[in-house]
Amino acid sequence: MLTLYHSPYSRSSRVIAQLMLMGELDAVEVITVDVLRHDGVGRRDPHNAHPEGKVPYLVTEDGQGIRESAAIMMYLDEVFGQPFSPEIGSPKRGAYLSWMAYAGGVLDPVLVAAFSGLDHPAITGTFRSIEEVCTTLAAALNQGPFLLGDELSVADILLASPFQWAPHLMPDNASIKAWVGRVGDRLDGETIAAYEARATAQLSTQAGT
Amino acid sequence: MLTLYHSPYSRSSRVIAQLMLMGELDAVEVITVDVLRHDGVGRRDPHNAHPEGKVPYLVTEDGQGIRESAAIMMYLDEVFGQPFSPEIGSPKRGAYLSWMAYAGGVLDPVLVAAFSGLDHPAITGTFRSIEEVCTTLAAALNQGPFLLGDELSVADILLASPFQWAPHLMPDNASIKAWVGRVGDRLDGETIAAYEARATAQLSTQAGT
Repeated sequence: MLTLYHSPYSRSSRVIAQLMLMGELDAVEVITVDVLRHDGVGRRDPHNAHPEGKVPYLVTEDGQGIRESAAIMMYLDEVFGQPFSPEIGSPKRGAYLSWMAYAGGVLDPVLVAAFSGLDHPAITGTFRSIEEVCTTLAAALNQGPFLLGDELSVADILLASPFQWAPHLMPDNASIKAWVGRVGDRLDGETIAAYEARATAQLSTQAGT
Repeated sequence: MLTLYHSPYSRSSRVIAQLMLMGELDAVEVITVDVLRHDGVGRRDPHNAHPEGKVPYLVTEDGQGIRESAAIMMYLDEVFGQPFSPEIGSPKRGAYLSWMAYAGGVLDPVLVAAFSGLDHPAITGTFRSIEEVCTTLAAALNQGPFLLGDELSVADILLASPFQWAPHLMPDNASIKAWVGRVGDRLDGETIAAYEARATAQLSTQAGT
């Protein structure tokens, strides 16, 4: 069985959302762990198999560890028959790979810099700024309701997630706001919220032991 | 025909190396462009189709733009029959996706921060430091000659490339040094160097027009 290390309201929450959307949450053993948050709350959890104590982290049946949200989400979609990603050789494949790499390689560094108040030429020169991220997202969303066009894909779940979980980072752009709303509509917000509340309660219990 | 936007001695050089290794450089139209370098040399080239003037950038036959080295290298390997990546469903697939996401999501930010002298808790907290990168790479390389084990893959070409092009960033770690050497041995260094020299000469000519 696949094992997912998850911490509620974190970068691993989008993996939970993906598994729920596929109807495959029961096919994965989820281990709830604490992580050290940006505000100093939490701790590095000894039960977390991630070599650096982060989430998400996925361990395969034969013990391979997979790190980075994009890789984990691509892998899970592949394991369950690619319901939300274009197959190799299909027309949207290049755009899909591009967005999945963009999430960790551009969007994430830009957002981390933005909410940390970090403004350094090495960051803006290499990864660009929130304005360029908005331009890139909006250009795609002006072509269709989702990043790959008419169909929701894993790329939407991954790239919309920072704006769902940290609405203060949401750009003041109508196309992007509408897209984040559309992606949210496709996910089961109530079930996710209930799951996260239970995971948080479980963590509190674990912390006391 | 696929079109690759390339600038010599840059992040796109590893894509040229990959195409040469596959024997498919002739199957791609390479457009040599100037880019603004970290030291302020160069310029944003009006001939570059990348929306932010960066390289590499790949445009498919039907006009889709693919950005980010990891995405471009995965896509090219898929287009040419996956000679250097594990197929979906095969045992090393998870590790492959993990390394490809790690390159842009961890290695690149850590190296950019390191050579810019940028030390900020948001960077080290989110992306970790060069020490953790070394630990991660060395742990894999203690299991086999290449990141996925016995076989060279696209992941090796991508992740070894910063150390090949900027040897001052090379960690003082015997396993990593030996791996970078092994990857270099599999690539055709002389042909790549000659190609890059021609591309540089071509750029100088273009700049004068």
